[in-house]
Amino acid sequence: MSGTVVRNIERASLEDIAVLAEFGVATIHEAQGRSGLLGSWMRPIYAGAQAAGNAVTVSVPPGDNWMIHVAVEVCREGDVLVVAPTSPCDNGYFGELLASSLKAHGVHGLIIEAGCRDVKSLTEMRFPVWSRAVSAEGTVKETLGDVNLPLVIAGQLVHPGDAIVADDDGVVVVRRAEVRDITAKSRAREDKEAASRKRLVTGELGVDMYGMRQKLKDKGLRYI
Amino acid sequence: MSGTVVRNIERASLEDIAVLAEFGVATIHEAQGRSGLLGSWMRPIYAGAQAAGNAVTVSVPPGDNWMIHVAVEVCREGDVLVVAPTSPCDNGYFGELLASSLKAHGVHGLIIEAGCRDVKSLTEMRFPVWSRAVSAEGTVKETLGDVNLPLVIAGQLVHPGDAIVADDDGVVVVRRAEVRDITAKSRAREDKEAASRKRLVTGELGVDMYGMRQKLKDKGLRYI
Amino acid sequence: MSGTVVRNIERASLEDIAVLAEFGVATIHEAQGRSGLLGSWMRPIYAGAQAAGNAVTVSVPPGDNWMIHVAVEVCREGDVLVVAPTSPCDNGYFGELLASSLKAHGVHGLIIEAGCRDVKSLTEMRFPVWSRAVSAEGTVKETLGDVNLPLVIAGQLVHPGDAIVADDDGVVVVRRAEVRDITAKSRAREDKEAASRKRLVTGELGVDMYGMRQKLKDKGLRYI
Amino acid sequence: MSGTVVRNIERASLEDIAVLAEFGVATIHEAQGRSGLLGSWMRPIYAGAQAAGNAVTVSVPPGDNWMIHVAVEVCREGDVLVVAPTSPCDNGYFGELLASSLKAHGVHGLIIEAGCRDVKSLTEMRFPVWSRAVSAEGTVKETLGDVNLPLVIAGQLVHPGDAIVADDDGVVVVRRAEVRDITAKSRAREDKEAASRKRLVTGELGVDMYGMRQKLKDKGLRYI
Amino acid sequence: MSGTVVRNIERASLEDIAVLAEFGVATIHEAQGRSGLLGSWMRPIYAGAQAAGNAVTVSVPPGDNWMIHVAVEVCREGDVLVVAPTSPCDNGYFGELLASSLKAHGVHGLIIEAGCRDVKSLTEMRFPVWSRAVSAEGTVKETLGDVNLPLVIAGQLVHPGDAIVADDDGVVVVRRAEVRDITAKSRAREDKEAASRKRLVTGELGVDMYGMRQKLKDKGLRYI
Amino acid sequence: MSGTVVRNIERASLEDIAVLAEFGVATIHEAQGRSGLLGSWMRPIYAGAQAAGNAVTVSVPPGDNWMIHVAVEVCREGDVLVVAPTSPCDNGYFGELLASSLKAHGVHGLIIEAGCRDVKSLTEMRFPVWSRAVSAEGTVKETLGDVNLPLVIAGQLVHPGDAIVADDDGVVVVRRAEVRDITAKSRAREDKEAASRKRLVTGELGVDMYGMRQKLKDKGLRYI
Repeated sequence: MSGTVVRNIERASLEDIAVLAEFGVATIHEAQGRSGLLGSWMRPIYAGAQAAGNAVTVSVPPGDNWMIHVAVEVCREGDVLVVAPTSPCDNGYFGELLASSLKAHGVHGLIIEAGCRDVKSLTEMRFPVWSRAVSAEGTVKETLGDVNLPLVIAGQLVHPGDAIVADDDGVVVVRRAEVRDITAKSRAREDKEAASRKRLVTGELGVDMYGMRQKLKDKGLRYI
Repeated sequence: MSGTVVRNIERASLEDIAVLAEFGVATIHEAQGRSGLLGSWMRPIYAGAQAAGNAVTVSVPPGDNWMIHVAVEVCREGDVLVVAPTSPCDNGYFGELLASSLKAHGVHGLIIEAGCRDVKSLTEMRFPVWSRAVSAEGTVKETLGDVNLPLVIAGQLVHPGDAIVADDDGVVVVRRAEVRDITAKSRAREDKEAASRKRLVTGELGVDMYGMRQKLKDKGLRYI
Repeated sequence: MSGTVVRNIERASLEDIAVLAEFGVATIHEAQGRSGLLGSWMRPIYAGAQAAGNAVTVSVPPGDNWMIHVAVEVCREGDVLVVAPTSPCDNGYFGELLASSLKAHGVHGLIIEAGCRDVKSLTEMRFPVWSRAVSAEGTVKETLGDVNLPLVIAGQLVHPGDAIVADDDGVVVVRRAEVRDITAKSRAREDKEAASRKRLVTGELGVDMYGMRQKLKDKGLRYI
Repeated sequence: MSGTVVRNIERASLEDIAVLAEFGVATIHEAQGRSGLLGSWMRPIYAGAQAAGNAVTVSVPPGDNWMIHVAVEVCREGDVLVVAPTSPCDNGYFGELLASSLKAHGVHGLIIEAGCRDVKSLTEMRFPVWSRAVSAEGTVKETLGDVNLPLVIAGQLVHPGDAIVADDDGVVVVRRAEVRDITAKSRAREDKEAASRKRLVTGELGVDMYGMRQKLKDKGLRYI
Repeated sequence: MSGTVVRNIERASLEDIAVLAEFGVATIHEAQGRSGLLGSWMRPIYAGAQAAGNAVTVSVPPGDNWMIHVAVEVCREGDVLVVAPTSPCDNGYFGELLASSLKAHGVHGLIIEAGCRDVKSLTEMRFPVWSRAVSAEGTVKETLGDVNLPLVIAGQLVHPGDAIVADDDGVVVVRRAEVRDITAKSRAREDKEAASRKRLVTGELGVDMYGMRQKLKDKGLRYI
Repeated sequence: MSGTVVRNIERASLEDIAVLAEFGVATIHEAQGRSGLLGSWMRPIYAGAQAAGNAVTVSVPPGDNWMIHVAVEVCREGDVLVVAPTSPCDNGYFGELLASSLKAHGVHGLIIEAGCRDVKSLTEMRFPVWSRAVSAEGTVKETLGDVNLPLVIAGQLVHPGDAIVADDDGVVVVRRAEVRDITAKSRAREDKEAASRKRLVTGELGVDMYGMRQKLKDKGLRYI
C-alpha cells in the first residue's frame, strides 16, 4: 500500500550533473547506449526549457496532488521533481504556487506524466516543466502516494537520486553512479560529432565519411 | 433537425466579464467548484493568447463550415465564437478571411473543437483561436447546422450568452447569471493564494501552512 | 524488396516553386481542389518555419535512419527531403549532424512522418522540419529502404521531384507538371480573397457578399 | 461544488422505451435528426450487448467510484446507469459486485466514459456495459460527485430520466418527452428502409431508387 | 476537383485471387517484401472475417457517403469496395442497406478508413467489413468524390483493380499484375514455414534451425 | 549497450502461481495495494484468454524480433514471455511459428507491448497473447536487445522470474517473493467479496453494508 516518504536519499554531485547536462538530452541518451529516455509525449511547456538535477520521485493517485505538497519538504537545492500518476491522468496537478514553493527550496524543475497549469506564470518565472498535457483541471488532496520510492514514468524506471537532464528534445534519466561515466562517454561522442560536423559542412558525404558503402553494397543496395 | 439560427440572445455584461477574465482560467475553474473547463486538447494557436466574451454557439457538420458564415451576422462586440462539429473532425474550418470578418464585428476570439488554418496570419492579427488541431484542410458549404442553441464542446455544455474565458491554460465557461458570483469567488481565491504565495516563497512548507500534517498522519503516511 | 536508390529524377523549376510557395499551404491546397495536403499531425518544429522545393523521397524501416544518409548524395540545391517509415515510428531519425550535411548540399528542409531531435540546434540553424514527433530516441543503421521511389506519407502519395510547400499550416504536395497551373489558380484565388477581405473588414457579411441567402433558405434555415 | 443526490426524477415509460429500443441505435439516431449519439469510443464489453432504460446520471471524480455506490439507492427497475468522470480517466470503476447490486435493483445496464473490469463475470451475468476502456485498475472512495444532475458524457448532454438505448453500434440518448415521437419516426424510417431493402436485394441501384442521378449530374459528376 | 467515376477498370482473375487469398494476409505481406499492408487500425467488425477480390476505390468527403451509392453501379462479382475519406472521419458511412445492395452485385466485402454501423446485421449477413471505427453517426449526400481513381488508404496506395486480401490480421493490397507472382512467393514461403513448423514443434530452437548463432555472436551477444 | 542474455533466473513455484491465478487479475491487483497492473491498452487477442507463469523478459528494438528467437532457448515449462520494444512500435513481432516453438518449450503465453499476427491460428492453438495491437507488419532480425534483464512494460517494472497473471481484465505482475503473500491477501479479499455479494444480490445497499453513510454526510453529501 502507498503512503511512504523516504526523507533521505543519496544524490549525485550537482557539479557533476551540471557538466553532464551541457551535452544535452540527445547526446546523453546515445552515450548511455540509447537508454534512459522518457517517452516523446513528455514535452516542455515553453521552448528553450532546460533543467538538470537529482530526482525526487513522487507517485500520485489520478486527480490527487497531495503528495507533491508532501514532497516539497524532502527536496533540496538542485533537485528535480519527478511525478507519475498510478494510472493515466491529464489533470493540472501543478501550478504557480507549488512552483513558488519548490523554487524557494532550490528545485530546478518538474517532470510530470500528467498535466500542469499556470503556464504563463511558470514561463515568466522560468520554472521549467515537462508534462504530458497542459490543463487547468484541478485536483483533490485525499489519497496518499509515495515519495522517493523507485518510480516508472513515461516508460522509464527512475530511482530517487538519479540524475535527470531535460531540454527541448525530452527527458533522460542517468543512474546516480554512472553520471561521470556517461559524461565521459558524452564528451567522447560530442568530440567525434564535432569532427564529423566540420567535414559534413564542407559537403563531404556521410556514406563516405562513415565508410558505409561496402556494407550498403553487401546488403544489396542498388543504384539506378 | 438542424437549421436554426437564434438571432437574439441574452448576454452578460462585457465589463463584468473583463473583470472576471483577469483571474485567468485556472482560478476561475477552481472558483466555480472545479467545473466548466473544456478538455485539455483545446489549445491556443499562439503562446500568450487571451480572450473573454459572450458565447455565440455554432454547431457544424464534419467538413462543412457554412454555419460559421451564417453566425457572423448575429455576433456583437465582445462575443466569442464557440464552434463544435457534430462528430469529430480536424478540418481547417476557419482562417484569416473569417477572422477579418469577425474582427470587423467586434468578436474577441474563436473556440473550435476542430481545426483552424492561416495560423501565421491569425497570429499577426492577434486574433486568438483555441482549437483541437491546426489544419489547412478545407471545408464545403453544403449542409446546415445551428447557431445559438446550447452546445456540447470538449466535454462541456455551453449556452449562448455564457461567459467564455480562455488563456494559455485552456478554456472555461461560466454561466451568464453567475459571472459576478464567480468573480467574487475568484477574487477570494486569489487573495488567499497571494497570502500563501508570500509565505511559500520564504520556504515555509505547504504541509505546515495548510495544516495537512494531522490528516496525513491519520491516513497512515509513514516517514522513513 | 527494398534497397533501391534512384539517382536522377526530374525536378520542377526552383523559380517556379518559389513563386508558388508565396501563396502558402492553405491557398495552394484549395487551388488544387482541396487535395495534396499531408495529415494535420505533421507539425513544424518551430513557429514560422517555411520551406519549398523538390521532393527527394526516402522510405525507412522503423527505428533505422540509414537511408537518410544514403539520400544526401542524390540531393541537389532546392530539394526537400521527404521521409516516411514503413510502419508508424516516432524515433528521432534526424538531428543537427544530418541537417548540417543536407544544408551543405542546398536542401531546404525535411518532412518526416516520424520523430526529429536537436530541436534547439535546428531552430538556431533555421533548418525547418515538419515531423510527427520530437524525440531524442536514436536509430540504428542496419536495414535498407528506398530513395526516390513514390512514397505514401501522412496520407498522400509523393513522387520524387514533386513540389513540396510547407509552412505553419502544414505540408502540401503539388505534382511536378502542375506547378505553374496551380500557381495560376492560387493567384486567382488570392486575388479573389483580397477583394473579399477588403469588403469583410468593413463589416459586410459573407452571407451577402457570397450570395448565400437563397441557398440557405432553400435548405430550410430558420431564423428565430 | 459537487455532492448532490437527486432522489426522485421523472422517467419515461418502460413500455415505451422497450418499443423504441427495438429499432436499434442507428435507426433511432437517424430518426431524431442525427443527434443524441455518444462518441464512437463507447464500446460494448461483449458482442451482442443490448440495453435500454431511463438514465440515472452519475458524475465521478477521476479514480473515485464512491458515487456509483451512492447511486444504487436511487435506481429503479428499468434504469440504465450513466457515469462520466469530471476529467478523462480509464480506471476500472465498475465490476461484478456493483453489477450484482445494480441487477438486484432492476438496472438494465451501465454506460461509463471510463473503464470497467471483471469482464468475464459481467459477460457471464449478461450485464451489459458500454465503456471507453477495460481496466482492472481500482478506484478509491474519498471524494463526492453528483447523482441525477444533467451530465455531459461522450459529447452528449444526458438529463436524468432520459431514455438510453445501446447496442453493438453504440449508445443514443432520447429526451424523455420525445420517446413516442422518436419511436414513430423510427418506425417510419424502418418501414421505408424495409421497402428499399426489398428492391436493393434484387440489384436495383440506389442512385436510381433514390432518384440521385439528376442531382449528381447537377453537381458535375463525370463518368469516364 | 473531384467528381469522376471510372466505369471500366481492369481486374485480376478471381480464380487467381482466390488462390492467393488462401495464404492469408501475413504471409502475402511477407511474400511481397513486407509491403502493401494497410495500417493496423483497420480492424474487422467480427472475428474470423475474410474477404478477397478486386478493388473498386472510392474517395469520400468527411461525413458524406454519397459516392458509395454511386460506386455500387460499377461493382462486379468479386469486387471489394475500398473507401477512404479525404480527411480523417469516423462517421458510420456504411450499414446494412448498402451491404444488401453490394451483396446483390456480388461484392465480397468493404475496406473503409472511417466508421461503419449495423454491426449486428452485417455480422448476421456475414458481410465482412474492415474499418477504423464502429459508429452509428450518419452521413449526408451533398458532395462529390471519386470512384476508381488511385487512392491512398491507411498508408497504402491502391489502384482500381488491385487485389485486396483481408482477414483477422488486417488488409493487404497486391498489384493486379503481380497476383500470380506473389502467389508463387507466398506458396514458397508457406512451404518453408511448414518445414520449420515441423521442427519447431519438436522443440528444436530457431536460433539453431535458422543458423543464427554466429551472426548473434558477431553482433556481440553475451550469455550470462 | 544491449546484447545480454541471462540464462538462469530464479522462478516462483508454478503450483503457487496456479493458485494465485485463480483469483484473477482484478482481485490480485487490489490485493497488492492497487499496484502492478499493466496499462489498459494491453488487450487479449481473443475473449476468455488466460495465462499465468514466470516472466522471461525480452527487450527488442523497434521493428526487430530477433531477440524473441533468442529468448526461446532460456524458457522453461510455465514461463510467460514478456516483450517490450525500446520505443513505441506496433509491428507484428510474433506469430504462429514462434508460438509453436514456445509451446513446445512449455511457455504459457505472451505479453507484448507491440503487435502480434496470425491471430486466427493463435486462437485455434489457444496460445494466449496480450498485445497493444494486431498487425501483420513483419520485422527484421538485425539488432540485439536483452533477455532476462529488468524491463519496463506498459508502465510497470517486471523482473525476470516475477509472476505474471493475465486474463480478460488485463495483465498484472507480482514479485516472485510475494506470490504466497498476495495469494493469501487475494483469498481474504475474495472471501470478503463473496460475503458482500450474498448480501448485495438481495438488494441490500452498499452504502449501508459498507457503513458509508456517516462519511458521506461528513463530506457534505446532500439528498434532494
